[in-house]
Amino acid sequence: MKKIAAVESFFSPEHRVTLEKTAAECGFSVDYYPEGHLPADRAAEYEVIYGLCPPDELKAAANLKWFCCSFAGVDAYMNEDIYPSKDVMLSNSSGAYGITISEHILMVTLMMLRQMPKFEEIVRAREWEKGLSMRSICGSSITVLGTGDIGTNFARRAKALGAKVVRGVRRTKKAGDPAYDEMYTLEELDSILPETEILVMALPGTRDTAHILSRRRIGLLPQDAYVVNVGRGSAIDQEALVEALNEGRLAGAALDVCVPEPLPKEHPLWSAKNLLLTPHISGNMSLGITRDLDVALFCEDLRNYAAGRKLQRLVDRTLGY
Amino acid sequence: MKKIAAVESFFSPEHRVTLEKTAAECGFSVDYYPEGHLPADRAAEYEVIYGLCPPDELKAAANLKWFCCSFAGVDAYMNEDIYPSKDVMLSNSSGAYGITISEHILMVTLMMLRQMPKFEEIVRAREWEKGLSMRSICGSSITVLGTGDIGTNFARRAKALGAKVVRGVRRTKKAGDPAYDEMYTLEELDSILPETEILVMALPGTRDTAHILSRRRIGLLPQDAYVVNVGRGSAIDQEALVEALNEGRLAGAALDVCVPEPLPKEHPLWSAKNLLLTPHISGNMSLGITRDLDVALFCEDLRNYAAGRKLQRLVDRTLGY
Repeated sequence: MKKIAAVESFFSPEHRVTLEKTAAECGFSVDYYPEGHLPADRAAEYEVIYGLCPPDELKAAANLKWFCCSFAGVDAYMNEDIYPSKDVMLSNSSGAYGITISEHILMVTLMMLRQMPKFEEIVRAREWEKGLSMRSICGSSITVLGTGDIGTNFARRAKALGAKVVRGVRRTKKAGDPAYDEMYTLEELDSILPETEILVMALPGTRDTAHILSRRRIGLLPQDAYVVNVGRGSAIDQEALVEALNEGRLAGAALDVCVPEPLPKEHPLWSAKNLLLTPHISGNMSLGITRDLDVALFCEDLRNYAAGRKLQRLVDRTLGY
Repeated sequence: MKKIAAVESFFSPEHRVTLEKTAAECGFSVDYYPEGHLPADRAAEYEVIYGLCPPDELKAAANLKWFCCSFAGVDAYMNEDIYPSKDVMLSNSSGAYGITISEHILMVTLMMLRQMPKFEEIVRAREWEKGLSMRSICGSSITVLGTGDIGTNFARRAKALGAKVVRGVRRTKKAGDPAYDEMYTLEELDSILPETEILVMALPGTRDTAHILSRRRIGLLPQDAYVVNVGRGSAIDQEALVEALNEGRLAGAALDVCVPEPLPKEHPLWSAKNLLLTPHISGNMSLGITRDLDVALFCEDLRNYAAGRKLQRLVDRTLGY
């Protein structure tokens, strides 16, 4: 029987039942590596690997045909040299993170608009001060840069909260989800930045997205704009962002991702003004619904794989997503 | 010409134009008291007062027929003795606060579910720790106690975010807003508390709502439940809540209101475990949309008043809302 290595710690007994049942139907058995490592002396047994197998452990899987990453962001798996062969397919778990990450975006956006970090500071000092100005998602102009599962889940929520306009920006012109009022290509981004009150970035880490929010583009945002980044830290010119924040040229930023991670203790990001920093937690696997979806998406693609159909979440390694 | 005293600080030039235009159409002129006080020697000039006139300044308004409070919560105006006559009508600004307060509820609920206060502590210490468990509004069972403008605005948002069930609880059986999956009366509250993961309280401060979340009812909530209160602090047995939080019998609480306000420096609420406290800011007037709505609602009722129709937001002083 062909074999799957499930290299992940989060599987519940119910997840294992689902995995094993689907695997059996597809002619596979499943071995678990909950400690997150694939032993080199067993790696050659597996045709399929699912989970967060460290990039440097894939090479030993001489018979590997498909690696399904349990994360949505696969930039750590883009280097061709880590694979035993060019023909190994890479897929991701895009679709499992839309709910949890869009709730994170909503939370940090509201926290910034409603001055929550300042109110928390007031309460820590046991003061009772109320007079800080607030804004609302209702009536706001929002730009979502990266219109995949995460960006689109947020766009839907922002519309439900009464955003005035939600603009989606993507690499190429395609019909957008109805959650977006208007769709733009990357080439048109500069023209909408001056009207953007909240810029949400949910992009994969690729060559094309590096420093996409450049110093020049930061300068195009209005002074009262907020920036949220949940994709990859590399998408922002961090030095320019820190300067803009400290000089009050932006109202604030919420970064769940940065360069490098973890952030060194002396890094200027820690103390940037009006910066709401979180340690790359927006997609935390601890959310039950994320885990359930992750397993369901793998099983769906396992059926595709077994039937010889194209994988739903196949990653194009030349594009990076 | 009959006269209106507008005792409020927040009016913009545009608000003044709207007020004066509507007043003129109704046969009134408007005097402004932006410092928030009505001089005793002028009080008798006014048939209508709109704003946050201090309760002890109303008595001098010998010719007052209608006081429209610019807040939704009018418990400070329930004492009959503060009025020059029993016939003075009291109305409130219910309807102006649904957007801002429901965004506050959403924010604090997400902050608790996603352990944000702990992550903020981690980041203040410049640590990079990720492994805290999180929950989601998506899939949650939510009970909204008080199904007025605020509760219903939150219910709509919770449904849009994928809540499993949103139950509304009100004093009397009436058809509910479609935002609620199920409607219950206060008598039925005990039966749904054990299935409640998030309890949102948005009740007016009346005799009937005092300590409605009693020690006994706190005991009916599951250990992993969260409580949010944006109505009046009097609705909760605070001592019992602090005990339940400190003993881990509740997952957490977010209070924007408490007893007394401001909270004295040595009060046990400041240091209660898993408590997210804010200084009664959820309905902050600084939100432009709230101010605009407040003025629009007063103008609507001014037209009703001038035409001899019943006020839309008339408060029944025997009920308290």
